Amino acid sequence: MSDRIEADYLIETPVDPARAAEAMAGEQSSGTFVKVPGETEALRERSTARVETLSALEDCSAPSLPGGATGEVYHRAKVTLSWPLDNIGPDLPNLMATVSGNLFELRQFSGLRILDMRLPRAFASANPGPRFGIAGTRQLAGVDQGPLIGTIVKPSVGFDAQQTADLVQTLAAAGIDFIKDDELQADGPNCPFDERAEAVMRVLNDHADKTGKKVMYAFNVTGEVDDMRRRHDLVKALGGTCVMASLNSVGLTGMLALARHSELPIHAHRNGWGYLSRAPMLGWDYAAWSKFWRLAGADHMHVNGLQNKFSEPDDSVMMSAKSLLTPMFADAPCIPMPVFSSGQSAVQPPETYRRLGSADCIYAAGGGIVAHPDGPAAGVESLRDAWDAAIAGIDAHDYAKSHPALARALESYSA
Amino acid sequence: MSDRIEADYLIETPVDPARAAEAMAGEQSSGTFVKVPGETEALRERSTARVETLSALEDCSAPSLPGGATGEVYHRAKVTLSWPLDNIGPDLPNLMATVSGNLFELRQFSGLRILDMRLPRAFASANPGPRFGIAGTRQLAGVDQGPLIGTIVKPSVGFDAQQTADLVQTLAAAGIDFIKDDELQADGPNCPFDERAEAVMRVLNDHADKTGKKVMYAFNVTGEVDDMRRRHDLVKALGGTCVMASLNSVGLTGMLALARHSELPIHAHRNGWGYLSRAPMLGWDYAAWSKFWRLAGADHMHVNGLQNKFSEPDDSVMMSAKSLLTPMFADAPCIPMPVFSSGQSAVQPPETYRRLGSADCIYAAGGGIVAHPDGPAAGVESLRDAWDAAIAGIDAHDYAKSHPALARALESYSA
Repeated sequence: MSDRIEADYLIETPVDPARAAEAMAGEQSSGTFVKVPGETEALRERSTARVETLSALEDCSAPSLPGGATGEVYHRAKVTLSWPLDNIGPDLPNLMATVSGNLFELRQFSGLRILDMRLPRAFASANPGPRFGIAGTRQLAGVDQGPLIGTIVKPSVGFDAQQTADLVQTLAAAGIDFIKDDELQADGPNCPFDERAEAVMRVLNDHADKTGKKVMYAFNVTGEVDDMRRRHDLVKALGGTCVMASLNSVGLTGMLALARHSELPIHAHRNGWGYLSRAPMLGWDYAAWSKFWRLAGADHMHVNGLQNKFSEPDDSVMMSAKSLLTPMFADAPCIPMPVFSSGQSAVQPPETYRRLGSADCIYAAGGGIVAHPDGPAAGVESLRDAWDAAIAGIDAHDYAKSHPALARALESYSA
Repeated sequence: MSDRIEADYLIETPVDPARAAEAMAGEQSSGTFVKVPGETEALRERSTARVETLSALEDCSAPSLPGGATGEVYHRAKVTLSWPLDNIGPDLPNLMATVSGNLFELRQFSGLRILDMRLPRAFASANPGPRFGIAGTRQLAGVDQGPLIGTIVKPSVGFDAQQTADLVQTLAAAGIDFIKDDELQADGPNCPFDERAEAVMRVLNDHADKTGKKVMYAFNVTGEVDDMRRRHDLVKALGGTCVMASLNSVGLTGMLALARHSELPIHAHRNGWGYLSRAPMLGWDYAAWSKFWRLAGADHMHVNGLQNKFSEPDDSVMMSAKSLLTPMFADAPCIPMPVFSSGQSAVQPPETYRRLGSADCIYAAGGGIVAHPDGPAAGVESLRDAWDAAIAGIDAHDYAKSHPALARALESYSA
């Protein structure tokens, strides 16, 4: 294992890519635009970033992004930079400034995207990582195999605490494994967190007493540090088994503060991901971005879903999900449970399972459950059927012949 | 003052913009893709987001971003949405999920950018805001009028604590008002925070004892919440007058935790801003984004500089700087001090002052100071001369006839 931090970038530049890569390394370490006193060879040796590899890709005739240097042709390349760990130590907020920082604004580039990172093992020791991950989540939810079948409280915002609990009652009775607050619902005056947590846990504790099954509910604790900790403690005291945070709302430091405090799995919501990723030659690939949150303590991470309602292509969804299941370190894999959601129904499980090669996920549907023509219980059943068939290698339509909930779902939800 | 949250967006869509705007409002409030039980008229009345205004802009023939719905033509428009404050209360992390959230991923859009926000006054009461701002910073730095002339420790990373202090000695002797750590330098093993703070403050306290002038040094405290607080306390105990944090590293919750604790001005660094802003039809305008940090407690905010070394055009730089000087609320303006930097020298002050209409700023130069042919003291002097001339309405070249430091700078740095 190297003691250097490595990051991979896709770049587009009108200048010689080798020179452009050197400018990246300079900007993000000991480079200066003007020579300054004290900048010695020993200093550079100790602290400078290095260009480890550079491989040319295609050229293009127009710049992807405006504002930079111009040329006749724009060269694309993949670049790997590395930094000595001792520039920052195994500190995630400062890693962010180091691998990202001002790079995206450099004039030399008409496109710059961070693709992936490889980090020294020290990062796993210094940061919480997922404390529960797949095994811990399965244990708390009482789901030994197959995906956790999940859903989201909808409407996103508008229910009061009792209305939320009433819906939860319906969903629990339908046999659901997992429910999450919407990311728009945290602790607003229309639905205060404490009231909601108490009303929901009353329902779920009753349900557990009767059935032996404790549905996992991800309470959205997003907010300031002390508020998140207090809300976590309430959830824990009420017998709840999961908290949720919006990553782009709380930031790395907020997530670390929550994770160091938390005794429950943290369901990490990526809302805002679009502004970080949707321009192909700017921003972040999920593999790089998610490693920050894996180390910071995310136990579940959203990856969208196949044939989703958003703009993300299926290949991108699967790359994200598979990246989460790839160990970061042999002895500290930091693997969170991928969360599939958005426009999901009994239609997508076969393809999802085939491409992921695993059923270690939370599989969440909204309309795919509550809009099932035979009601929410049939909706949940249809999703389990679809996954059971996929795992057993049986065609969904064949399986549907003896599984009416799946049959009705395939009729209703197929395009 | 409205009790609704308002946000303005630039959108691009192949569908009817009015329908697209309704989809935005639905996604970010009580909308559901499938009708669910309990979704009543009263609920919608209480919680739904509204489209307040929609004004058509030009059409274009190709989509700015891939992955969304396609059409023959893509309509651009400016849209204002509003939300009831009671959906979330005056909470900044949850405001982020509300005005941003999943919007950027919606299929309807081939472009979506948030331009600005207007908030209920309750946000100013509930959040720290800049505790020092312009007046408090001037008082601590002992600079009654004109900009604080500032600089950055360079090389960005690589100096140890004593080398940093030696450079600070040189800069203080040169008459500088303000120095900041580089954003790559926080608390790495090569230059531990505590050693650096102690070495630097020894120099600056000695300098203050001798000259009566306490140079303001922004120590980069970026890190986890408890580390930031501890580092802040050390700086304060050593007689320091400023701390710095990288906004995209600490996140909103981290910034709020620091600001609620801090007894010193917070110098807010925006590194990473490029990935949020550089695609013209995606992400954030600075006016919208900076309001989160103004409310969260940023006393100084970076805006780049005219003719900078990065890819940002001058008009964008000035729009950012002017937005910071525009009050958020009549009785709670939340105005941080704009920080100009990047490729600055005695050349740009006249145009900066003319366009900003104010000298309430930190004006930071690296090479513009240390690479002045007559040394750093002449570098600092040349910047003061340039600002003095601009404020007095005197042409810089005329002023240079009686101000040799400025004359030499204009010779050296003019393109």
